[in-house]
Amino acid sequence: MTNASALTLGRRVMGMIEDLAQHTDEPGRLTRLYLSKAHRKAAEATLALMQQAGLDAHIDALGSVVGRIEGGNPSAPALLIGSHIDSVVDAGRYDGNLGVVLGIVIAEALREQNIVPSCPIEIVAFGDEENVRFPTNLSTSYALAGHFNEAWLDGKDADGILVREALVQFGGDPHGIAALKRDPQRYRGYLEVHIEQGPQLEAGDLSVGIVSAINGITRARATVIGEAGHAGTVPMNMRRDALAAVAEMIGIVERAGSTRTDTVATVGVAQVQPGAINVIPARVDFTLDARSPDDAVRQAMVQDIVTECEAAAQRRGVSFTIEPFMESPATPMDKDLMLHLEDAVKSIGVSPLRLASGAGHDAVAIASLCPVAMLFVRCKGGISHNPAESITVEDADAAARVLLEAVKRIVA
Amino acid sequence: MTNASALTLGRRVMGMIEDLAQHTDEPGRLTRLYLSKAHRKAAEATLALMQQAGLDAHIDALGSVVGRIEGGNPSAPALLIGSHIDSVVDAGRYDGNLGVVLGIVIAEALREQNIVPSCPIEIVAFGDEENVRFPTNLSTSYALAGHFNEAWLDGKDADGILVREALVQFGGDPHGIAALKRDPQRYRGYLEVHIEQGPQLEAGDLSVGIVSAINGITRARATVIGEAGHAGTVPMNMRRDALAAVAEMIGIVERAGSTRTDTVATVGVAQVQPGAINVIPARVDFTLDARSPDDAVRQAMVQDIVTECEAAAQRRGVSFTIEPFMESPATPMDKDLMLHLEDAVKSIGVSPLRLASGAGHDAVAIASLCPVAMLFVRCKGGISHNPAESITVEDADAAARVLLEAVKRIVA
Repeated sequence: MTNASALTLGRRVMGMIEDLAQHTDEPGRLTRLYLSKAHRKAAEATLALMQQAGLDAHIDALGSVVGRIEGGNPSAPALLIGSHIDSVVDAGRYDGNLGVVLGIVIAEALREQNIVPSCPIEIVAFGDEENVRFPTNLSTSYALAGHFNEAWLDGKDADGILVREALVQFGGDPHGIAALKRDPQRYRGYLEVHIEQGPQLEAGDLSVGIVSAINGITRARATVIGEAGHAGTVPMNMRRDALAAVAEMIGIVERAGSTRTDTVATVGVAQVQPGAINVIPARVDFTLDARSPDDAVRQAMVQDIVTECEAAAQRRGVSFTIEPFMESPATPMDKDLMLHLEDAVKSIGVSPLRLASGAGHDAVAIASLCPVAMLFVRCKGGISHNPAESITVEDADAAARVLLEAVKRIVA
Repeated sequence: MTNASALTLGRRVMGMIEDLAQHTDEPGRLTRLYLSKAHRKAAEATLALMQQAGLDAHIDALGSVVGRIEGGNPSAPALLIGSHIDSVVDAGRYDGNLGVVLGIVIAEALREQNIVPSCPIEIVAFGDEENVRFPTNLSTSYALAGHFNEAWLDGKDADGILVREALVQFGGDPHGIAALKRDPQRYRGYLEVHIEQGPQLEAGDLSVGIVSAINGITRARATVIGEAGHAGTVPMNMRRDALAAVAEMIGIVERAGSTRTDTVATVGVAQVQPGAINVIPARVDFTLDARSPDDAVRQAMVQDIVTECEAAAQRRGVSFTIEPFMESPATPMDKDLMLHLEDAVKSIGVSPLRLASGAGHDAVAIASLCPVAMLFVRCKGGISHNPAESITVEDADAAARVLLEAVKRIVA
């Protein structure tokens, strides 16, 4: 199905991505944190793109850009399409932006094809997905679902600037947040297209894939305390080496993640004290990040990890403490919306792979407003949060055609 | 054999230790680095103690304090007794100092008992054992063996001060170093008493033990490079997790050290990059410290570690490089001197345990001048290089009686 002439949508997507990528807080690399100057510029650019596409658009009280087509029946439940335009530090250009741009491109395409949807379509560019600048996370999408917490306004960035202050400086309105809440009765669903941020589509030679669920996450901090000692003089059988114990625990975590379906478990941080070549490590602090599309599976996995680590600690005579500080349940995708996406994927001749999303997305927040579904787009090497983040124009085109087809089926 | 009245020597040892412990470069804790002001003060205090004990003493060109009794036959090969008076940062008071003080106490005791040794006895307080301030190590004892390297004078401390400059400031003489070289024909042996710095004597309920050899050491820096990735999105079977690989390697090192006799192997440093809870580690740098009293055993152990780590790296698709940067051969103790120490240990009713020294000592350098032997003294919890370093007056007394008995047998 893919041929040179069919890349019109893909080229349009890549052009808009290029436009948005100009807006950065740091010259020479892409950094666009929530409520920064670059975020404002990118929001205004997004607004302009929406208006050019014929949408009735505005920047809302929290800085999200919202554009709307009323369609044939303005009182029918609307279809939401969106993602985010904030970024991490030294980011790639596709994460988030791709889903926003695709919504606009689909709106353009509907207009060009003289298709009047049977219900309103709302395109949203959220602003607080990456959780980099402030302690808040998904605040702009939670606001639409009516779950914005007023306390979030008192969160500070590294310079001590409150969300509340940054919002006013941005041109937003702390007093307008409550009014952002949407009526669930008036929304039929939410579609989000996002780069995969993983290697499965590339490994399967697939341009796009259908998300089955967004994984639930448990995060914890753990500490092992043993006893420092001279690396030359303490016999092996008299040691209480904190690092050797944690090495065993990292093996436990790795096996726990590997021996279940669709789970991952990662130790990303390990800090060794005192950290000298000739001193037996006395203490190691490490982190656990465990994910699964199934909450019961994730909880059982974490419990198994804790039990096995406790046994290893006891055997080695070291202390082990672990403190979970984040428990984010899995977000299942809506079966009907998934079937629409699946049909649309098949319609462009791609085999419909279902895959769990390891990363969180705005869809997690919107799931408390209405049914949600997500389409993943293959990205080079599975790399994201990195300037090397890359997709092909062919895959952008495939994603646009799938989204357009799915939207047509949903709003027919 | 130990009773209250027999603690005279032990009390004298503890008194001198107390005297020396006053000299520190940092108020509130004991820090006495080579050629520092505190080192000068401690050298002068040691000189005074030697002179009070009737020794003909001086501070030499490199800052070592040397005291001599000529004995009955000044041209007979002399017996050296010594250790060091420099310390680590925030040190204990016994490491090094104990061996110096014991030499002086033995000289006092010989005089009190009107014993004229058949040969000269030289007591030495070396100054550069801890390898903390300058890149040099054992330079003051190597000078006696004629192995001082002139290039060592150009070594710098953290403030950029050269050994050469610090030496002049101390009152030493860079031009007098060559003359420190002793004639091997004129020395019959070297005895060094030192705290064990390990837990074996305490575990065996023994006040002292005889060192069988000073372990050889291999030190290396290793690096594993895998691939960073999103901790949520990269499936376990597609990861190249550098930390999971190093965890396996730490297990390899631990097993290598544990499954051989008298060997130890330690990973004391492991630095993880990028080190974020939600990022699969891309790189880990770690260290290896491997020791054995038998050089062939040590070399085979290190080779096995490297081979097994390479296999693990290959299986995991990560790169593994290891760079040994220190190869210090084992120093065997002299059989005859060991037997004298053993007889002396038995003479005070203690079971003569032979144990390898995991740490290096001035005896390593002096071994290239003359036969060497060492006596270890039990220290509380095996702790050293720490203000909690501790020995009992009873054990100090036992060490003094053993050393006195051994000296009598050697110089009879």
